[in-house]
Amino acid sequence: MAMKRVAAFSAIRAFTSPSSSSVSSPNLTRHLHASPGSKKIVGVFYKANEYAALNPNFVGCVEGALGIRDWLESQGHQYIVTDDKEGLDSELEKHIPDLHVLISTPFHPAYVTAERIKKAKNLQLLLTAGIGSDHIDLNAAAAAGLTVAEITGSNVVSVAEDELMRILILVRNFLPGHHQVINGEWNVAGIAYRAYDLEGKTVGTIGAGRIGRLLLQRLKPFNCNLLYHDRLKMDPELENQIGAKFEEDLDTMLPKCDIIVVNTPLTDKTRGFFDKNRIAKCKKGVLIVNNARGALMDTQAVADACSSGQIGGYSGDVWYPQPAPKDHPWRYMPNQAMTPHISGTTIDGQLRYAAGVKDMLDRYFKGEDFPPQNYIVKEGKLASQYK
Amino acid sequence: MAMKRVAAFSAIRAFTSPSSSSVSSPNLTRHLHASPGSKKIVGVFYKANEYAALNPNFVGCVEGALGIRDWLESQGHQYIVTDDKEGLDSELEKHIPDLHVLISTPFHPAYVTAERIKKAKNLQLLLTAGIGSDHIDLNAAAAAGLTVAEITGSNVVSVAEDELMRILILVRNFLPGHHQVINGEWNVAGIAYRAYDLEGKTVGTIGAGRIGRLLLQRLKPFNCNLLYHDRLKMDPELENQIGAKFEEDLDTMLPKCDIIVVNTPLTDKTRGFFDKNRIAKCKKGVLIVNNARGALMDTQAVADACSSGQIGGYSGDVWYPQPAPKDHPWRYMPNQAMTPHISGTTIDGQLRYAAGVKDMLDRYFKGEDFPPQNYIVKEGKLASQYK
Repeated sequence: MAMKRVAAFSAIRAFTSPSSSSVSSPNLTRHLHASPGSKKIVGVFYKANEYAALNPNFVGCVEGALGIRDWLESQGHQYIVTDDKEGLDSELEKHIPDLHVLISTPFHPAYVTAERIKKAKNLQLLLTAGIGSDHIDLNAAAAAGLTVAEITGSNVVSVAEDELMRILILVRNFLPGHHQVINGEWNVAGIAYRAYDLEGKTVGTIGAGRIGRLLLQRLKPFNCNLLYHDRLKMDPELENQIGAKFEEDLDTMLPKCDIIVVNTPLTDKTRGFFDKNRIAKCKKGVLIVNNARGALMDTQAVADACSSGQIGGYSGDVWYPQPAPKDHPWRYMPNQAMTPHISGTTIDGQLRYAAGVKDMLDRYFKGEDFPPQNYIVKEGKLASQYK
Repeated sequence: MAMKRVAAFSAIRAFTSPSSSSVSSPNLTRHLHASPGSKKIVGVFYKANEYAALNPNFVGCVEGALGIRDWLESQGHQYIVTDDKEGLDSELEKHIPDLHVLISTPFHPAYVTAERIKKAKNLQLLLTAGIGSDHIDLNAAAAAGLTVAEITGSNVVSVAEDELMRILILVRNFLPGHHQVINGEWNVAGIAYRAYDLEGKTVGTIGAGRIGRLLLQRLKPFNCNLLYHDRLKMDPELENQIGAKFEEDLDTMLPKCDIIVVNTPLTDKTRGFFDKNRIAKCKKGVLIVNNARGALMDTQAVADACSSGQIGGYSGDVWYPQPAPKDHPWRYMPNQAMTPHISGTTIDGQLRYAAGVKDMLDRYFKGEDFPPQNYIVKEGKLASQYK
């Protein structure tokens, strides 16, 4: 039964489907919208293997292929799906010269470098199934006249919920207790001596975009002292409703916080911004949650601060690079509550971003504009948050 | 340094302190309030050992002794503190014949049976440092004219926060991802196939007392469908503010819920009420959170349902018995997110219940009434929630 479902979903279909022989029309000028005729669309997702068959709504994997294969193929398009994305011998690399559309996810990012863009003569559209397009060289994409779009809003609730979970796991010191259970132990003191309530603590978010605001809204009934740092102050009514206080200067906010949540996109300016010096500005024993991007942090500085106790706990689902290698120091540092990159790819999130990808492909085929908030690069210009 | 702090806090002081030689006045009639003179007070807490020295606010352990030793001894009372509570050879048992006050916690319960009550000729007052007095034979205590009181409200926020954490851990499938990290693995699919958002799910609480209500308030911004079962419907204004719908019949509510939270006290009526038949009434794959009492559940029925998949995940910090033996089936059942009994003994919670115990002892010495909501047994009568 399980094997049958895997077979039905299998990516192998991509390479044997009837439409795979249709040749796409050459398109050397990179129009923002589709030229008529068949398109070659490549999707890069993580492989689910034995897990693919366990949930019919598991569309975000190679096997699920966003649930759009029949729809694409019925319109004469070619749809290649793979998880093999790294290096010159990868499946993705083979299709770079003639693909029109590349779909990828932040959970298993297909890195789109300037070199790949140069090589991709037919490429018109880069879609992120989810949110976060920093795996794409956006300046190169803009210079090449490509359109880059993501499904804005598709995972904001997922990530905000996940952040609140991680805050609670760290503050309440959940993991040492769970490890006791599976190790046959019982030592309440070994948990309690550093377990706290969230109530009354100061929580600061670096970035109060959609995810940061959803987090703050969910934090409100916990009766914390809520702070946010962003480029702009919220309008007073919203700020009052959310109940958070604006901190114009990041380094002034940091020492006030018991808990810091990173909710800022990865850009050239923010890469590695949370380094040894920033960590030193935090309260001793600060708890940090980062579901934004691993490369915002100085990896080794975080590991060192967890060892010294300057950071009292670190949790997140983002790493640099991804997948995290076996020897990534965050796997082994004390008081970490890490997971692989998962927060935005819940089943609910997958269904939302699969629907968003389908909608944008449909608009692309019809030559229609996308929802404006989805554009990351349009007509050679980067969206403001990526500048 | 660590050793020094442990020594300063050490329980050994209890047996060598100057006041330990003072003999309490005989008190064979069990007055509800203190007779003049020195009292023998016994506290039963968990031992912290090496953890005692790591946090000056860690007052809930044997070593911390609720932080009331100096205060008690300065008034001429004798204060014995121990973690040794089981059997006829235990330290607690030695003091049963002449103690006046017994303080215990739900985290390391001193079981006060009818036999012990019979033997405790001087006993007047049983205090629970925290909430939950089911380790005491309340009917026997009432018949003997004892006063039983707890620090109502001292841990309600702690437990409600902890419940929300556990809901998120189960719904979002946190633990398999964390285990991947520490095992050097990376398999997003192995997490994602059964990870969901909390948003949009139906959450039902069995019991909507203080903890249940605080949980519902914290759940509100998650945009769930909230249900509650209790003996009484909330008043309409409160119900509307909390945003939960009353379910008069438990067995009608169960099949509606994606997530069930148990928030009902353990009584003769509720013991084992969540048995095989009740579990069968739930939605397949239901997630259950129980921070109330382990004995509310049929232990083996829960383990069997986790194995069969009828229960999709079970999390809680309460077991029967406590400490959970090494072979307790909940340690080894699939999809459990268990910890030892911890949710109400955060550092914040400890400071609140230590202050509550001190306040009630002070009132007891002065012959004053306690805050009315704290009484569990008063003048031979049980509080309504324990009837």
